[in-house]
Amino acid sequence: MNFTYLSGGVSEGYCIVKTVEQKLNVKGVPYLDLVLSDSDGEITAKLWDYKESVHGKFEAGAFIKVRGTLSKYNGVDQFRVERIRPVTPEDNVDIGAFVPSAEYSGEMMLQKLCSYIDSLKDEELQKLTRALIEENAEKLLFWPAAYKLHHAMRGGLLYHTLSIVKLASAVARLYPAIDRDLLLAGAILHDISKLDEFELNPVGIVKSYSVKGELLGHLVMGAMRIEEKAKELGVSEETALLLEHMIISHHGTPEFGAAVRPMFLEAEILSELDTLDATVYEIENTLSAVEPLGFSARQWALDNRKLFNHGRKAAIPKANLE
Amino acid sequence: MNFTYLSGGVSEGYCIVKTVEQKLNVKGVPYLDLVLSDSDGEITAKLWDYKESVHGKFEAGAFIKVRGTLSKYNGVDQFRVERIRPVTPEDNVDIGAFVPSAEYSGEMMLQKLCSYIDSLKDEELQKLTRALIEENAEKLLFWPAAYKLHHAMRGGLLYHTLSIVKLASAVARLYPAIDRDLLLAGAILHDISKLDEFELNPVGIVKSYSVKGELLGHLVMGAMRIEEKAKELGVSEETALLLEHMIISHHGTPEFGAAVRPMFLEAEILSELDTLDATVYEIENTLSAVEPLGFSARQWALDNRKLFNHGRKAAIPKANLE
Amino acid sequence: MNFTYLSGGVSEGYCIVKTVEQKLNVKGVPYLDLVLSDSDGEITAKLWDYKESVHGKFEAGAFIKVRGTLSKYNGVDQFRVERIRPVTPEDNVDIGAFVPSAEYSGEMMLQKLCSYIDSLKDEELQKLTRALIEENAEKLLFWPAAYKLHHAMRGGLLYHTLSIVKLASAVARLYPAIDRDLLLAGAILHDISKLDEFELNPVGIVKSYSVKGELLGHLVMGAMRIEEKAKELGVSEETALLLEHMIISHHGTPEFGAAVRPMFLEAEILSELDTLDATVYEIENTLSAVEPLGFSARQWALDNRKLFNHGRKAAIPKANLE
Amino acid sequence: MNFTYLSGGVSEGYCIVKTVEQKLNVKGVPYLDLVLSDSDGEITAKLWDYKESVHGKFEAGAFIKVRGTLSKYNGVDQFRVERIRPVTPEDNVDIGAFVPSAEYSGEMMLQKLCSYIDSLKDEELQKLTRALIEENAEKLLFWPAAYKLHHAMRGGLLYHTLSIVKLASAVARLYPAIDRDLLLAGAILHDISKLDEFELNPVGIVKSYSVKGELLGHLVMGAMRIEEKAKELGVSEETALLLEHMIISHHGTPEFGAAVRPMFLEAEILSELDTLDATVYEIENTLSAVEPLGFSARQWALDNRKLFNHGRKAAIPKANLE
Amino acid sequence: MNFTYLSGGVSEGYCIVKTVEQKLNVKGVPYLDLVLSDSDGEITAKLWDYKESVHGKFEAGAFIKVRGTLSKYNGVDQFRVERIRPVTPEDNVDIGAFVPSAEYSGEMMLQKLCSYIDSLKDEELQKLTRALIEENAEKLLFWPAAYKLHHAMRGGLLYHTLSIVKLASAVARLYPAIDRDLLLAGAILHDISKLDEFELNPVGIVKSYSVKGELLGHLVMGAMRIEEKAKELGVSEETALLLEHMIISHHGTPEFGAAVRPMFLEAEILSELDTLDATVYEIENTLSAVEPLGFSARQWALDNRKLFNHGRKAAIPKANLE
Amino acid sequence: MNFTYLSGGVSEGYCIVKTVEQKLNVKGVPYLDLVLSDSDGEITAKLWDYKESVHGKFEAGAFIKVRGTLSKYNGVDQFRVERIRPVTPEDNVDIGAFVPSAEYSGEMMLQKLCSYIDSLKDEELQKLTRALIEENAEKLLFWPAAYKLHHAMRGGLLYHTLSIVKLASAVARLYPAIDRDLLLAGAILHDISKLDEFELNPVGIVKSYSVKGELLGHLVMGAMRIEEKAKELGVSEETALLLEHMIISHHGTPEFGAAVRPMFLEAEILSELDTLDATVYEIENTLSAVEPLGFSARQWALDNRKLFNHGRKAAIPKANLE
Repeated sequence: MNFTYLSGGVSEGYCIVKTVEQKLNVKGVPYLDLVLSDSDGEITAKLWDYKESVHGKFEAGAFIKVRGTLSKYNGVDQFRVERIRPVTPEDNVDIGAFVPSAEYSGEMMLQKLCSYIDSLKDEELQKLTRALIEENAEKLLFWPAAYKLHHAMRGGLLYHTLSIVKLASAVARLYPAIDRDLLLAGAILHDISKLDEFELNPVGIVKSYSVKGELLGHLVMGAMRIEEKAKELGVSEETALLLEHMIISHHGTPEFGAAVRPMFLEAEILSELDTLDATVYEIENTLSAVEPLGFSARQWALDNRKLFNHGRKAAIPKANLE
Repeated sequence: MNFTYLSGGVSEGYCIVKTVEQKLNVKGVPYLDLVLSDSDGEITAKLWDYKESVHGKFEAGAFIKVRGTLSKYNGVDQFRVERIRPVTPEDNVDIGAFVPSAEYSGEMMLQKLCSYIDSLKDEELQKLTRALIEENAEKLLFWPAAYKLHHAMRGGLLYHTLSIVKLASAVARLYPAIDRDLLLAGAILHDISKLDEFELNPVGIVKSYSVKGELLGHLVMGAMRIEEKAKELGVSEETALLLEHMIISHHGTPEFGAAVRPMFLEAEILSELDTLDATVYEIENTLSAVEPLGFSARQWALDNRKLFNHGRKAAIPKANLE
Repeated sequence: MNFTYLSGGVSEGYCIVKTVEQKLNVKGVPYLDLVLSDSDGEITAKLWDYKESVHGKFEAGAFIKVRGTLSKYNGVDQFRVERIRPVTPEDNVDIGAFVPSAEYSGEMMLQKLCSYIDSLKDEELQKLTRALIEENAEKLLFWPAAYKLHHAMRGGLLYHTLSIVKLASAVARLYPAIDRDLLLAGAILHDISKLDEFELNPVGIVKSYSVKGELLGHLVMGAMRIEEKAKELGVSEETALLLEHMIISHHGTPEFGAAVRPMFLEAEILSELDTLDATVYEIENTLSAVEPLGFSARQWALDNRKLFNHGRKAAIPKANLE
Repeated sequence: MNFTYLSGGVSEGYCIVKTVEQKLNVKGVPYLDLVLSDSDGEITAKLWDYKESVHGKFEAGAFIKVRGTLSKYNGVDQFRVERIRPVTPEDNVDIGAFVPSAEYSGEMMLQKLCSYIDSLKDEELQKLTRALIEENAEKLLFWPAAYKLHHAMRGGLLYHTLSIVKLASAVARLYPAIDRDLLLAGAILHDISKLDEFELNPVGIVKSYSVKGELLGHLVMGAMRIEEKAKELGVSEETALLLEHMIISHHGTPEFGAAVRPMFLEAEILSELDTLDATVYEIENTLSAVEPLGFSARQWALDNRKLFNHGRKAAIPKANLE
Repeated sequence: MNFTYLSGGVSEGYCIVKTVEQKLNVKGVPYLDLVLSDSDGEITAKLWDYKESVHGKFEAGAFIKVRGTLSKYNGVDQFRVERIRPVTPEDNVDIGAFVPSAEYSGEMMLQKLCSYIDSLKDEELQKLTRALIEENAEKLLFWPAAYKLHHAMRGGLLYHTLSIVKLASAVARLYPAIDRDLLLAGAILHDISKLDEFELNPVGIVKSYSVKGELLGHLVMGAMRIEEKAKELGVSEETALLLEHMIISHHGTPEFGAAVRPMFLEAEILSELDTLDATVYEIENTLSAVEPLGFSARQWALDNRKLFNHGRKAAIPKANLE
Repeated sequence: MNFTYLSGGVSEGYCIVKTVEQKLNVKGVPYLDLVLSDSDGEITAKLWDYKESVHGKFEAGAFIKVRGTLSKYNGVDQFRVERIRPVTPEDNVDIGAFVPSAEYSGEMMLQKLCSYIDSLKDEELQKLTRALIEENAEKLLFWPAAYKLHHAMRGGLLYHTLSIVKLASAVARLYPAIDRDLLLAGAILHDISKLDEFELNPVGIVKSYSVKGELLGHLVMGAMRIEEKAKELGVSEETALLLEHMIISHHGTPEFGAAVRPMFLEAEILSELDTLDATVYEIENTLSAVEPLGFSARQWALDNRKLFNHGRKAAIPKANLE
């Protein structure tokens, strides 16, 4: 643990509550049994004589500051917690060092996304995308893109969205028949209802799907959001309809969750670029753990393929979003 | 044709415009070339010296009254139209004798459906279903349920809906764990957005899918309708969510168009009963054209199966909705 | 264990042999090492100085009465068996309290089924179903319907059969083209060769599939039973053929084990109702272990779906067979 | 047509009735409008003043002798029938020259098959196969093996059966673990219920599937035949069961009609050899119509493949059954 | 036809032989019966008293110059050919005006492709791609990319290749883990053996697949070409292997013809971009024939989808390759 | 272990190194921790004071001779190695007794295969097969045919190849349209590039797939081998093409790894016989571990089937290759 050694055997530091359980000692007095983690590793910890009214309540995923003493128990390090509290903005600590996070700040990515919105020439599409992005800016700054698969990290949703917007922009330059505004608007909004689909833990990592997320999915919820916002802003039905179709078709085929299959050019391209970005991430992520000239195990999320690390370049799951 | 013979070689009667095309005769004068149909058969007809300003405009599917004279042309009957006009309510003619129609009146079926709504004990579900049915009552009275497959007839949507509601009611009696109100509300509303999915011709038969119908489908549109109406009526999000899930999952599997698969009992049962009613109709309809102890051709809509008419009972596509 | 305490540390009670193994003690003397269970729980037990000629032979699944003394061994309860014998009818104990069992008695369900047979108007169908049900009445009173899936309980076969017959009866009321006699006869007999498909343990729970069950399956065996019985009773070939088709097609598609696909209305409906009853049971059974607003794990037997407990009604796998 | 010219413009010859329809001439007098065929070609024919009581009744597929006069009608040959009658054994004409037929006589193939039966060492298997082949010998002499696909010719069933028996015999020599008797018995009987599956026209070519053939299929019917015959002959249940399993599994997978999948070695091999013989026939038959270095059209019966005629050897659908 | 009118009823012009057949007139004298086409339309033509030794031989697809007289036959234009000869380079006529052709010249596209080869930093990859492209430059200038689907036009192969190279270049900018040289080399060579896969007609449109093309496919042939060339040039086995894998996997899945699935990042991306370019072309090409707000028929090559022309931009199958 | 007891507590014997790991004792001195195996069982062993320069280097799979003393450690046998060295030819020990091996010698099988090559009448095919077999004779003598599935044993590749050649020869006798030379040449060479596909451990059992094996597969590599060798030997392109097609199609369908589907008779038969031999082996191998009248577990490699041991003959995975 990257704890700071104070004096008298006392250390303190920031960490994440990995697991927490309230137990009783042999005298029937409650204590907390915790596992704490930071980028350096994990440690088991005890908070003896735990009183919720005094110490506060902590759940898995909480970002905290602790102070206490380190000892050995059966040859294993153990931390005896003296003080514990949630991290506050005043601590000025970057959560990114503690949980998987995009390597760009949410603010930078959001600003970049907004500059693409500014570039849209179709006023309705600009108005609609701006409204939906701005209203949700706070969450977007850190929202992850997935539970377990690609971009399951703080800021992952913006990261994935921006990657696709950049790809879309390049593709639109190649094929003059593409309606760039429509394609970019669809790319910007395609996963917007992932904001409704997950329950996060306190540090911004997906804890589970939400009930609504399971019962409707982010495709149908996304179309509903657009329907409602378009009515509110007076965006024409025709425009809203095209975007809604792009949202509910962007998984490509029913087998992968699309409610309908893409029926026009921009919908099809959005769907293919979504696959491309997710696949690149998955492959790079998988190969980053395979040594050169080695093969990975079969990857369920990649159609049960093995992957090969040819070793010509380091495999890192990263996009150049500058 | 069931035309009435007047005097002087003149006949008149009601019929449907099956096809209509404006042409020019050898002198360059416009005339209408028509095919007219009623339950007795078809006839080709000409309206010479056609002027839209005088005679009006007619499209395929129009329900009209004509008067004119019958003659032979190359040994085939041909009708020379003298007068032509749309049928009006004052004519008091039943369209049901001219196009495929449910054997129950729309009014009777709607009333029956409303009595099921009355039977719901959950106030939110009752309020929501009542509002959506009553608002759309006018269209429901004659709306068909399909383009080419099951219940592609005037009144087919109510016919199919009511059949499923009756099945649902019976199934709910058998299994005590079923929430009857939820199941019935889902059954009543499951196809409500078929009202948005088709373009009809003037006599109430599907002419084509609507643009919106193709791009979103009646499942997603149905969920949107419920979302909007539930907000308007103050129905709780939880209740709306369950119904929305039932709507978007009622085709059972993605392969058959479900946006998600049914995840609770009432959603699953609705989906199975929808299949049951459609399949029964398809089988009966197919077998009604096969003689006893004979086999049909392979039926695309039935998984490419042949069907056998065992001849123990007459095959008629009919439900007992009394 | 629901054992009765007698005097002198001695208890006695009825229970099921969950596992049994003959072992040798350190002196080479045989003893039985058992696990016993009743609705209250399980206990390990020893029968020292076991002699088969004296005590009898016991296999897993046996329903027995034991008497003995309870002690602790390494802090765990252990039962030292003094006396052990199979339960006999004279004990007048209901096995249903010891193994998963239908909540209706076999007699009640059989009588109900026979009343449906009485209602058949087609004499051949009545004769044939009556013969096959009556001949197998003894087994039917307790036979389960499955190894691991739906209705894997004592009496499950009659329970499942009667549920489908009730559904069939309701469906036949809705669609006048259905030959009710044929549909009900098929429903009554559709799983009759499950009697040949399983090996049961002594308390009437499936131990394994029989060799014949694996090599032929209950569909083909069922058709063979009907063929043989129809010849014996002089039932016409035409009638037998229709029933045989219903039996071998009732799993709907080859993928699910149907030898042919249903080719007439009654065969198709039987197949769909079979699916409906099994699915309802599976869903209710799964959800009965999920708390309100929670989701189940993915269910292999339900196409790998997660299920949602919406909590509006208690989930219990039960049908109203009165 | 290979007709013989007599004197006075009169010809006569043997032929097959390809189509026949009874019509009325302009005076309302019935006549027969026929198409007749032999190995040389086809001709249209008229039988004026047709009286069933005088001329007899003729259906498509009948093998007949005609006499009459040839004339031109609109530049096309037409035959005016004077006399017409079915061919009788006394005519001593070989039907094989008129319809597709195996190049070996039925008698030769049956004798060959019986010599394989003689070679079985297992008495039960020998008794059972002998009984079933001998009882059906008359039909087997000419029965075809299919409606449209492989071996759809007179004698095709024996031809296909014998080919597989010869393959099975060779395979059994290679793998010592094979029970040769079981494999050969299964091969001999695997398609026996094709005798029940087709309706033939008078010259021994399949006219259609029988009702029983459609509703049960030759696999299930075959197992039923064995079940019944085994009981009659006192063959043990174990032996009958193995054969029944081989019959109902010999199409390999449910997708191709197997009621269960092969579960032991001999069943699997039978199924693979059945595919092999059918595929060889289909490929040879297809390529026999393709010129060297050319490709066929896509073949539905071969998984939609194109085939290539490499021209190294002539493609003929033939097996060496001597 | 864009023929030039000379004097005396005589016209002349350039055109393509669409069909040609040698026939005999009533006197038994040979003549050619032709259909000729240019961008303006088609015309039937006759070349009377045809002598191959005098007029030369012409096959379908030939690019010719004709002179002759126009007349009416049964009210239809017909051309009587007086002179006919193949077009020669001296005619200086652009074939592009007569058959579907890329809108960029082969030379321009080839030069562009070579500039990408120049940009490769890996010497082996540069050497190998340069050799294979330069050796085949003559054919590449006009070779089409397909028989019936995307880019079935003169120059289509370079057009499709260059589009993918441009996409690949953009994608490599986004993801730093991509080995740009490897990806581009794979993109440049991925369809190189389409040069072996088709037989062309004289104007450079695919007439049929070659025998080798059918039996091996351009994926396996492409890998063989690389293997052979790499050995010749002394390119390392490791490098050749990676390229060979990219070639044989670029159809993505076995279902679409890949011999193996892509196992590293560059192989996967190549496969996805290949799909993207082909799909964009198919969609644009399909929609170019659909009017705004209309739907196409189902497209076999697009997974049987209907497409929607939203009309926001003109649909033209074109890439910006400048 | 089949070790020989010498005097003074010392034993020696031949065995296989199952696992080997270099460790440090508490004093930091290296030792080897091994598991050794022979046909009798396994034993753990220690080589104290290990020095690579003295003792040599040993990897898993090595075939060695050891001498040392046996002792108990915690009640378990342990072997203290005194001497260790690789087995050499001079030891004259048959490796077949230590690892799974074909029951025929490599030499015998190779000779048999060569006699089939001698029997080919087509000179090109004979020349090509002879060259490829002779060049690889050394490896073929012991090469296995698979990693985990059928014929994963020393000599398995020749065993499997010869079995198929024998089947092919029998099939060619039955169907006169088969080009025997082509079929046999394809059978002889079909798996030749399995020599490139595996990395073996020292005793000739597959350790893993090679990089090349994973990235190209033995089908494509096999075609490349033939292409290269045919050019070298001056074999005609036509002949090489047919063989190459047979190699890349011999897995039958893309789903099972075929690059293209078989398009002529000999290619199809080769593919079916390859399946047959592999399936027979899998079934026999599976059933050899099942007792009579018992069922196996589901077999992944057999389409997830259970298998039945009918017990009429012993199940042994063996072919009669004499």
